[in-house]
Amino acid sequence: MRILVANPNTTAAVTERMLAVGRAAAAVGTELVGHTAPRGVPYVSSRAEAQIAGAVLLETLAETATGFDAVIVAAFGDPGLFAARELFDVPVVGYSEAALLTALMLGRRFSVVTFAQALEPWYAETIEAHGLAGRSAGVRCADRSFSSIEAVGAEMEDHLVELARRAVEEDGADVVVLGGAPLAGLAGRVKHRIPVPCVDAMVAAVKQAEAIATLAPVAPTAGRFARPRGKPSSGLPPALADRIAGR
Amino acid sequence: MRILVANPNTTAAVTERMLAVGRAAAAVGTELVGHTAPRGVPYVSSRAEAQIAGAVLLETLAETATGFDAVIVAAFGDPGLFAARELFDVPVVGYSEAALLTALMLGRRFSVVTFAQALEPWYAETIEAHGLAGRSAGVRCADRSFSSIEAVGAEMEDHLVELARRAVEEDGADVVVLGGAPLAGLAGRVKHRIPVPCVDAMVAAVKQAEAIATLAPVAPTAGRFARPRGKPSSGLPPALADRIAGR
Amino acid sequence: MRILVANPNTTAAVTERMLAVGRAAAAVGTELVGHTAPRGVPYVSSRAEAQIAGAVLLETLAETATGFDAVIVAAFGDPGLFAARELFDVPVVGYSEAALLTALMLGRRFSVVTFAQALEPWYAETIEAHGLAGRSAGVRCADRSFSSIEAVGAEMEDHLVELARRAVEEDGADVVVLGGAPLAGLAGRVKHRIPVPCVDAMVAAVKQAEAIATLAPVAPTAGRFARPRGKPSSGLPPALADRIAGR
Amino acid sequence: MRILVANPNTTAAVTERMLAVGRAAAAVGTELVGHTAPRGVPYVSSRAEAQIAGAVLLETLAETATGFDAVIVAAFGDPGLFAARELFDVPVVGYSEAALLTALMLGRRFSVVTFAQALEPWYAETIEAHGLAGRSAGVRCADRSFSSIEAVGAEMEDHLVELARRAVEEDGADVVVLGGAPLAGLAGRVKHRIPVPCVDAMVAAVKQAEAIATLAPVAPTAGRFARPRGKPSSGLPPALADRIAGR
Amino acid sequence: MRILVANPNTTAAVTERMLAVGRAAAAVGTELVGHTAPRGVPYVSSRAEAQIAGAVLLETLAETATGFDAVIVAAFGDPGLFAARELFDVPVVGYSEAALLTALMLGRRFSVVTFAQALEPWYAETIEAHGLAGRSAGVRCADRSFSSIEAVGAEMEDHLVELARRAVEEDGADVVVLGGAPLAGLAGRVKHRIPVPCVDAMVAAVKQAEAIATLAPVAPTAGRFARPRGKPSSGLPPALADRIAGR
Amino acid sequence: MRILVANPNTTAAVTERMLAVGRAAAAVGTELVGHTAPRGVPYVSSRAEAQIAGAVLLETLAETATGFDAVIVAAFGDPGLFAARELFDVPVVGYSEAALLTALMLGRRFSVVTFAQALEPWYAETIEAHGLAGRSAGVRCADRSFSSIEAVGAEMEDHLVELARRAVEEDGADVVVLGGAPLAGLAGRVKHRIPVPCVDAMVAAVKQAEAIATLAPVAPTAGRFARPRGKPSSGLPPALADRIAGR
Repeated sequence: MRILVANPNTTAAVTERMLAVGRAAAAVGTELVGHTAPRGVPYVSSRAEAQIAGAVLLETLAETATGFDAVIVAAFGDPGLFAARELFDVPVVGYSEAALLTALMLGRRFSVVTFAQALEPWYAETIEAHGLAGRSAGVRCADRSFSSIEAVGAEMEDHLVELARRAVEEDGADVVVLGGAPLAGLAGRVKHRIPVPCVDAMVAAVKQAEAIATLAPVAPTAGRFARPRGKPSSGLPPALADRIAGR
Repeated sequence: MRILVANPNTTAAVTERMLAVGRAAAAVGTELVGHTAPRGVPYVSSRAEAQIAGAVLLETLAETATGFDAVIVAAFGDPGLFAARELFDVPVVGYSEAALLTALMLGRRFSVVTFAQALEPWYAETIEAHGLAGRSAGVRCADRSFSSIEAVGAEMEDHLVELARRAVEEDGADVVVLGGAPLAGLAGRVKHRIPVPCVDAMVAAVKQAEAIATLAPVAPTAGRFARPRGKPSSGLPPALADRIAGR
Repeated sequence: MRILVANPNTTAAVTERMLAVGRAAAAVGTELVGHTAPRGVPYVSSRAEAQIAGAVLLETLAETATGFDAVIVAAFGDPGLFAARELFDVPVVGYSEAALLTALMLGRRFSVVTFAQALEPWYAETIEAHGLAGRSAGVRCADRSFSSIEAVGAEMEDHLVELARRAVEEDGADVVVLGGAPLAGLAGRVKHRIPVPCVDAMVAAVKQAEAIATLAPVAPTAGRFARPRGKPSSGLPPALADRIAGR
Repeated sequence: MRILVANPNTTAAVTERMLAVGRAAAAVGTELVGHTAPRGVPYVSSRAEAQIAGAVLLETLAETATGFDAVIVAAFGDPGLFAARELFDVPVVGYSEAALLTALMLGRRFSVVTFAQALEPWYAETIEAHGLAGRSAGVRCADRSFSSIEAVGAEMEDHLVELARRAVEEDGADVVVLGGAPLAGLAGRVKHRIPVPCVDAMVAAVKQAEAIATLAPVAPTAGRFARPRGKPSSGLPPALADRIAGR
Repeated sequence: MRILVANPNTTAAVTERMLAVGRAAAAVGTELVGHTAPRGVPYVSSRAEAQIAGAVLLETLAETATGFDAVIVAAFGDPGLFAARELFDVPVVGYSEAALLTALMLGRRFSVVTFAQALEPWYAETIEAHGLAGRSAGVRCADRSFSSIEAVGAEMEDHLVELARRAVEEDGADVVVLGGAPLAGLAGRVKHRIPVPCVDAMVAAVKQAEAIATLAPVAPTAGRFARPRGKPSSGLPPALADRIAGR
Repeated sequence: MRILVANPNTTAAVTERMLAVGRAAAAVGTELVGHTAPRGVPYVSSRAEAQIAGAVLLETLAETATGFDAVIVAAFGDPGLFAARELFDVPVVGYSEAALLTALMLGRRFSVVTFAQALEPWYAETIEAHGLAGRSAGVRCADRSFSSIEAVGAEMEDHLVELARRAVEEDGADVVVLGGAPLAGLAGRVKHRIPVPCVDAMVAAVKQAEAIATLAPVAPTAGRFARPRGKPSSGLPPALADRIAGR
């Protein structure tokens, strides 16, 4: 089983970290292939950046997503997820989607804990977009600066644990999702310091990708994710233009 | 008052039609300036196309949106709306957002009637994204082909009236929104053939843009639409890169 | 375009203030005509008072609402709005309805800030009645006394700004609506002291009335706002009895 | 225990029918006292009529509601209910409120079946106003004329049974409420012809009035139904003016 | 009218208390018959215990529920309620169901106040299961130990009053339900110390049981509570096996 | 990784079928161990049966659930799921829970298609209990008889495919879940005859159990699934009594 880990951020080190965490969680026979966005921002943290990153993701998938059994949109917030699900035949799962769905099995209400205030509105809208607001206890964000996106998980470890505990005590969370691609692997390190189950989004993403790849679903020809009919375009990268044209 | 009508589609003839309809509805002193997307698809009709069109819209606004009192994202489905609202200081209103909000004043539940089946999932998600699903009676789509996007409104006039009537009788609509930029101006022509109020989205967009421009709101420095902090990027058009960098 | 500003309160000075604020916001060619309730209470601030004021409003409209392109029910809480929309052919917009709809274009969640504790339950029910609770961050009410309904806006200016700030910081408001007819005009004065956009309900009401008047909607003969059939009555003022009788 | 059955309609024969049905259901020691609205319409069937009838109800209660243990607002749609609950110390229950709450104990989803198309929007809003839309399977209305409001229940008996059956089969109703004061007593006659439990609104109203009277609740001095502070008024009937003034 | 008060807890003293409180509230001619669970836990306070207690309740009803006009599932949380409603012809009402429905007539939002932290998740799910979360202001639980389940109401009286007041002031409750069978009778003692109406769940349960017994509903043969067809089983107590077999 | 497949039905042949389907989908190194309920009904198809089966499940888990990395409650409808999640330390996933969560990744709205009318209310409540009603397009049930629970999948294959197609065309399903343990393995056989992705609940259950077992979550000591404190009981099987006693 081959799974594409498509990072819509431009930071290769984060892709590497996700791959390392993902490979440790993958089943025997699951191969993870990483891809880092060729343009955009180092880490997406707003709706405007997600709008752009999602469009770049479509270009990426048009160019690279053949020969895979599933694709992971490897950024919390799932930029371009529904568009990709509509446009490509391969099953696609979102990084936050996977984490939130997995969290549902571990408690009644989940909280997302992450490393930057700017992420709150986008993450909150992501939860709403998945129709899961009724099971959310909210998003808790760190309120301090960090030296680099690669180091943020290590630097903030204690602070994020503290936020997770407050999500449990003050917000009523039954399960905590550590959100944001740079935090991949953190949940495993800190889970014994938090009094409720803790979900690592990358682990969840790999297992959910394996789940949908195992089902090997047909590409829909009806419903809300049926492939749109081919259409001309102008000014788009050739592979994406071809895909939109239905070629 | 200057309002930018930013069409995320690449069809200039649709921009022209919207401007003609909009100017007839505008107040004295309101100037409408049109802009057609330089790349993308002739008319956006899917989530994938909206993902791309929304990113192009941000490029457009970065390059052109100075000196305006308000911006209209001039395509039903509002590609890039929340991203634009977050990234730019000028008030931004969505074409479908304006139509739906206006419809709320004319009935309890609105139906959207439009010209292509492919639009249903995207329009339904748009209604949900605005938090208005509780007041929606659904989306009715024409099920036949048309010769060109410029001609679709004229060709389907009778069929769309019939769909509107069925939305009233079968779905319980109290008000009908004729959705899709190519249908601008149609509501005025057919409203006497439909037993409930009928909203022309372009008329609504202009009046709602005037409304928020009259308020002259401050650019938020708090809340979910506060401008994100500047951030480096790579591979983006210069004006957009500058805007994202906070320059 | 002629718009009736029907104040369901009995305080003429508040009507005058709304007219002054409204005229400054109106388009060229928009004429605002004021009317103050002939009986009832100086300012409606409870559901019981709204029940009475709404009934008086219907009498008012039966007597005066000819020759207008739109009517504004000019009290936050919109007493009698749905009844008036049902009973009369002219488009009718509610004062709070207009403010809330306008706020939706300026943020994800709005807070209403107002001048008296007693208003909270009624305003909260108003938000629910419009189906907008999902986008509300709550109602914040001043907790102090004031010398007169005419003076309350000036006396409480600093306190209301402070409440608006707390709505942003503590409740997560992205946009603030200053509610209550006596506060007409306040938003323009204080908006630079509040970190998110601020909506003046009277400005919103005028612009929304212009919007629906521009559409010139047909009077519905189907749906939930179709005019009821004529019916006899007893003991009602003649004009209202005539209207109910379908005469 | 004395219970006031306050009919907001002006048809005394309907009051008599409700009293007869109610007395057969009442507990030993429960005394029902009827009152018919002195002005208004023969039977309320629209929001405009409910706005007026609710205001008249407040006048009625101000004049007559002393010495009672509970009050029934005896019209489906509950005109003036929340206003009355706020303004008076005696517990007040709505006719449809009682029927809907009782129905909740007999099935997952209830349907309301009634005798006139015009009632649908008002009844639907009533269900929403009580926060019970999530448990509603809809409102089914007869589509034919009747000779008089007193006779409608007898004339339409077969038709209403048929509508109830269709509510079960087509809408998924688990329990049927026969709504509208003129239908008091009908449920008992027809319940064996309907395959799910059937609620007589008048029986429900009496039993629910007995329930809240037995609790003998304190009049709230906090929360959303605390009595508003006294306020001057003009042009209102003396007893109501006194009540609003807190005298 | 004969009503079975089926206590799913094994504490006979609690059954006795409920009967005493219930008899004081019952109408002339209402006979209450108590039953205490023959196995299980002294007081159900978790979902696991409710799962077991609900199954035992079905055994109880299979053995004893003939000759009754209504059944009360006499534990807050209503273990086995929907199952019993489905399996037996006699009308069944839940203890918390009755309390919550009654509370709806006394305020917009209710709070449940109870004696042990462990009850919160179960009670919250109960409120959701009844579709009433939209009218809930939350569950407040005592955080201290008590000497015995029989004594908890007396020992915690002041503390529970304090919690009720905080539910009003901090959570916005308009009405307070004192939940948990061991608190039967407490509301009557303390209601004058709480500024909003207070519901005694046992009083509510008796009056609601009287309400549905008065309606004498048919046993549904359609809808979600139609009796399932007979089915073989193994290892179940004979009376329950007979009932499931449709014998 | 060892996973317990706990079938709350008493039909061993269904357990065997689920194991066969599950093993084909399991990762290398995943061991599935089956268990069939020792008492109860051949297949649970109502809430009453689920109440009993859930209690028996708790007994089963108390006796057998040591040495496992995860437990599957192997019946659609998830009898006893939340109770088990609360009472035991091992992660527990429900059969329908797993299927529904997996379906969320394959479409916007799912439909459940199953083999008996009686299942509709219970399945609908299951969807609501998981907070997923907003993403459901409904439950479609076969309306014909079958020779045995073991044979139902084969006998109804064509009929279920037809129901799935109607769910897509008439109900708007984007993904179909074939529900009910006796249908394990059917989705793989028929998926090419249905125009949208199709979820086999047993495949989903195994992959979701692997997902939560890989996370190896801590047993919560806070939140809504913290283990309740030990409590005495009477009349329960020893292992379950011990577990409830916290021994």
